[in-house]
Amino acid sequence: MDLVDRMLAGDRVALAKLMSRAENEAPDLPEVLARIAPRGGRAYTIGITGPPGAGKSTLVDRLVDKLRVEQATVGVIAVDPSSPFSGGAVLGDRIRMQSHCLDPEVFIRSLSTRGRRGGLARATRQMVRLLDAFGKGTILIETVGVGQTELDIMEVAQTVVVVLVPEAGDTIQVMKAGLLEIAHIFVVNKADREGAFRMKAELEQMLHLRPAASWTVPVLLTEANRDHGITELLAAIHAHRRYVASDGAAQRAAAEHRVREFFDVLSGTLAGRLESRVPDAYAPLLARVREGAQDPYGAAVELLADRDGLRRLLDGDE
Amino acid sequence: MDLVDRMLAGDRVALAKLMSRAENEAPDLPEVLARIAPRGGRAYTIGITGPPGAGKSTLVDRLVDKLRVEQATVGVIAVDPSSPFSGGAVLGDRIRMQSHCLDPEVFIRSLSTRGRRGGLARATRQMVRLLDAFGKGTILIETVGVGQTELDIMEVAQTVVVVLVPEAGDTIQVMKAGLLEIAHIFVVNKADREGAFRMKAELEQMLHLRPAASWTVPVLLTEANRDHGITELLAAIHAHRRYVASDGAAQRAAAEHRVREFFDVLSGTLAGRLESRVPDAYAPLLARVREGAQDPYGAAVELLADRDGLRRLLDGDE
Repeated sequence: MDLVDRMLAGDRVALAKLMSRAENEAPDLPEVLARIAPRGGRAYTIGITGPPGAGKSTLVDRLVDKLRVEQATVGVIAVDPSSPFSGGAVLGDRIRMQSHCLDPEVFIRSLSTRGRRGGLARATRQMVRLLDAFGKGTILIETVGVGQTELDIMEVAQTVVVVLVPEAGDTIQVMKAGLLEIAHIFVVNKADREGAFRMKAELEQMLHLRPAASWTVPVLLTEANRDHGITELLAAIHAHRRYVASDGAAQRAAAEHRVREFFDVLSGTLAGRLESRVPDAYAPLLARVREGAQDPYGAAVELLADRDGLRRLLDGDE
Repeated sequence: MDLVDRMLAGDRVALAKLMSRAENEAPDLPEVLARIAPRGGRAYTIGITGPPGAGKSTLVDRLVDKLRVEQATVGVIAVDPSSPFSGGAVLGDRIRMQSHCLDPEVFIRSLSTRGRRGGLARATRQMVRLLDAFGKGTILIETVGVGQTELDIMEVAQTVVVVLVPEAGDTIQVMKAGLLEIAHIFVVNKADREGAFRMKAELEQMLHLRPAASWTVPVLLTEANRDHGITELLAAIHAHRRYVASDGAAQRAAAEHRVREFFDVLSGTLAGRLESRVPDAYAPLLARVREGAQDPYGAAVELLADRDGLRRLLDGDE
């Protein structure tokens, strides 16, 4: 556990190694996170999401600039569906973020989605916990893409910024993608392009149709690549943060997120035990499933009925 | 189990009820699927995905038309991130699909993503198994949105069609979203719009940069709302189906998918047991997590260390 001590003492290499263990869903990570829990709980988490091509990475980069001016310490987690061909991240984004790479108060980490099935929201949450215990006061989570997993990841964030561009098409698509429900702040980026004002008006109209809420979702115009509108965006984020601190519904949501995190750790741990032990303990059954000689459901029912075998699979190590 | 018999005898209401149980992840569903397994295994599954606004629903509608002309029996699963405000699906898509609602050989079902965390690929897979056993020979899965969950869902499909529109922006976004890797066929829909030919050329160039493969991914132009190019698309799907039947790599991928399905059922069942039993068995612990008096990781570590308690949580019913 020396790694944990080094991380808590401010060692960035130790932090990076623990982040990798979160990414790889190392089975002992819950113990690590339980141990560092007393040091955490102070970070504020901001999610940035939206369709591909909306300019989220540039926006995050500019936000980090402003946060640094405010003396905030910053962590960035970029959830990045990397390609097996490109050998990792699409280069452009990473290069842009390199302007902060030499700043010791900024820690940037991308979380690869390659070859992954599920568990992304869990890994993101664990990385937030690590950055939090490391002392990062503000954590930005950027997700590329718009889908259910991204919506799940955004649940980790206390303030969610949805970034769109005028070209993103009809605002009805925003509704279809479930973005209207998760946005605390809308940003129409690349606002110099045609249709920006119309999109802002449409979003405001859609927001107006919702049941009245105590937080009014603002729709902001930005041009991240020219650094326009970023100060206003950060002010809106701070305003939402103050709102969250005082709002009962937000407190209840946070309580439910803690419960969700608890169940995720439990089921993730058990799934890990299955994946590591079934290949040895049930080799013939697994072979039959692989060959198609037995259907997966019949095989699962058979294994689940083997009470003693199941116990052996799921017991912790002696 | 009368419901299963009725479904196998061709009762659509029974099928719909079982589909709902798959959607709601009913704990006894693995047994149902084990029972119907001998009746399945014949259906061919086609996935249709792409960014919001690409016209996927219209394309699916037109494909169903052509499949019906070929006398195929068709199932459609539309994975639909419904909004809590709109009270369900965004109306337009569903209305369009109603042209097939009176055709007894077509079964259309949407799978809501509302309030869901994970499990979507599992539910989709189970619905495919049900439609398969019901006798649907061709099953179309449409996912709205582009994200990791959608990529996972597309693993259920044997042929994956990725639908884009010229407005979707730079084709680099296709790479970022992980679509290049999953596409067996690319469609540039709304091909009458500016940039369609350029997008086709760019996609073909990107595909050309990949390691040589025995299947050449075609890039097709369609105008689904005018019924242009759909016959060619269906021909490409059939060609890919013949390819899959003869390709060793595709056979190995299918074997790995069966193994994945097996593990998903196992971990899904165990997660269900935890969620239903922990609130009673560990009420004080859960309350401490909810209130923030104990961190979720410490609580999970504590529960996992309670071997007898964990066994009681995970044992099947007597």
